[in-house]
Amino acid sequence: MSGFISGKFKNLTPYTPGEQPKERKYIKLNTNESPYPPSYHAVLYAAEAAKNVMLYSDPRCSELRSALAARCGVGADNVICGNGSDDILNFAFSAFCDDKTPAVFADITYGFYPVFAEYNRVPYRIIPLKDDFSLDPADYYGCGGTVFIANPNAPTALALTVSQIEKIVEKNPGNVVVIDEAYVDFGAESAVPLTKKYKNLLVTMTFSKSRSLAGARLGFGIGDEALISDLNTVRYSTNPYNVNSVTQAAGIGSLEDGAYTEENCKKIIKTREYLITELNKLGFYTTDSKTNFVFAKHEKLGGEYIYNALKERGVLVRHFSLPRIKDYNRITVGDDGQAAALVAALAGIVKG
Amino acid sequence: MSGFISGKFKNLTPYTPGEQPKERKYIKLNTNESPYPPSYHAVLYAAEAAKNVMLYSDPRCSELRSALAARCGVGADNVICGNGSDDILNFAFSAFCDDKTPAVFADITYGFYPVFAEYNRVPYRIIPLKDDFSLDPADYYGCGGTVFIANPNAPTALALTVSQIEKIVEKNPGNVVVIDEAYVDFGAESAVPLTKKYKNLLVTMTFSKSRSLAGARLGFGIGDEALISDLNTVRYSTNPYNVNSVTQAAGIGSLEDGAYTEENCKKIIKTREYLITELNKLGFYTTDSKTNFVFAKHEKLGGEYIYNALKERGVLVRHFSLPRIKDYNRITVGDDGQAAALVAALAGIVKG
Repeated sequence: MSGFISGKFKNLTPYTPGEQPKERKYIKLNTNESPYPPSYHAVLYAAEAAKNVMLYSDPRCSELRSALAARCGVGADNVICGNGSDDILNFAFSAFCDDKTPAVFADITYGFYPVFAEYNRVPYRIIPLKDDFSLDPADYYGCGGTVFIANPNAPTALALTVSQIEKIVEKNPGNVVVIDEAYVDFGAESAVPLTKKYKNLLVTMTFSKSRSLAGARLGFGIGDEALISDLNTVRYSTNPYNVNSVTQAAGIGSLEDGAYTEENCKKIIKTREYLITELNKLGFYTTDSKTNFVFAKHEKLGGEYIYNALKERGVLVRHFSLPRIKDYNRITVGDDGQAAALVAALAGIVKG
Repeated sequence: MSGFISGKFKNLTPYTPGEQPKERKYIKLNTNESPYPPSYHAVLYAAEAAKNVMLYSDPRCSELRSALAARCGVGADNVICGNGSDDILNFAFSAFCDDKTPAVFADITYGFYPVFAEYNRVPYRIIPLKDDFSLDPADYYGCGGTVFIANPNAPTALALTVSQIEKIVEKNPGNVVVIDEAYVDFGAESAVPLTKKYKNLLVTMTFSKSRSLAGARLGFGIGDEALISDLNTVRYSTNPYNVNSVTQAAGIGSLEDGAYTEENCKKIIKTREYLITELNKLGFYTTDSKTNFVFAKHEKLGGEYIYNALKERGVLVRHFSLPRIKDYNRITVGDDGQAAALVAALAGIVKG
């Protein structure tokens, strides 16, 4: 800290991304990346676009938005693209929250929400999940703030149904409800169709997980035109060229290759079911995952102990020190080989 | 506007990027892009990186920062990378300005500065340039705010010397001075060496102009470690993965091919001198450009008239309607062919 930083940020604690270690080759199951490479359409389009990067990217992302709109069954003006869905979420905290309108979210959810709130200096209200980590929709009815719900939720891996989401949207007519669907392609239902019915619903999605484009940074939001216009006000006031042209091209390529994405999702779901079965055999409790990760607690061994023991064995998972979930680890599903290696490592740890 | 947007943004007027028209093929001299393609190192590295985008980008940009540090003669911890230099500038308005510390900048300068200030809800003080658009350094001595100076300045194309910059930095020991060097490679002196001597100096630069990577979105900031750490606090509170892995790779490739960049800059400077000579012959007054654009006013014809007449003839330049500069146009230098086409079009317009 320099002494020049504004006092408003003196107590700001930034987000901590998952480790990206360089010193050793790990089996990397800590940041929920896809084990499968990007679609070759995406790679080819990206390589082609790279030749023309002397020109600015299209700040309107016209072609990509049209492709997304077609895929999602909405209009192009219902879509905004971002430098990852974090970009869109940050815009939403900025645009839709203020002293009169707090952000409202769960205690155990995406760890960036409180950081976005703190950074944008907006108040926030935390609604604890139930003991089993389920979210009771009724807790959010008429909550008087802008709702942020990750569905499926991270790191709990649990999903609400669309009708549960709809009830929350319906019961907050005066406030925006943001549904963060980063993990929706691994077995949950999307709330996108509801955006046609409700002017207060924003759904965010990402190409980082199911579409294998984490490193290209591409996310998007879907909602009523007026909501999207508000987010564009923020975008054009900070970084109109937020999505570079190579990433726009990669996104278009990926969308043209939807079958590849679906196939990968099916494989990941299958590996997840294998992983859950094996973890249960080893004495782990796991939540009902609708994501590309499992959330697992051992009947005897602590979460941090397991995290460290796995790291020693060359397997990286994500541990959070929050009291309610300190006994758990969030473990990316990976491919069959990674899952088998994880199971073998855990067997060694458990049998000690 | 949705009715949900926070009242704090009701009067926010976003930045307007230069037109990126699709309906017609223009000679595009409106956004100061390079007429030369990116280095093939940059393209190859980008294409290679695209194959691995299933993994997140390195949020620390370690390899790219090391390459930049080596090139700039500073340490890696003196460097921060951004999604374009706009990203870094926005961080600086956020981190270093507040109710007690206004932003301070010229009336005729990069049009995004007042937008960044408005968006970040920080006060700002405008110091008018002199009648000839020169900036008097003494106007900034002990100014009591965070100084933002584009050097060379846009759209005036004029540059301060490093000793003039140093005086401003020296005379504001309690405040940060940000020197925005987007155009520095076209004939001006960089203030980067001063960052070793002054803890309150931040220099921002971009790969968008001289390095032909506008569409890849890559900018960076150089300054004292503590200043960079402050900017990282903002970065890790909004979007830690702000620079995607393909762009990081392209940046590294570009830096390895420094001779190509230098050669392009020389060509652009040569074309600029040709352009200025020809414009002067046609009755245009031009400023002493140290950039990849010229700022030109005709002795008889208005700026908007010329802008429209050029557009009709298929040449796009940038016109700003601000009263002090409404008679001018900002014209990207381009390559020799583009410059010749512009001169021919202007000759037709002037001779009417």
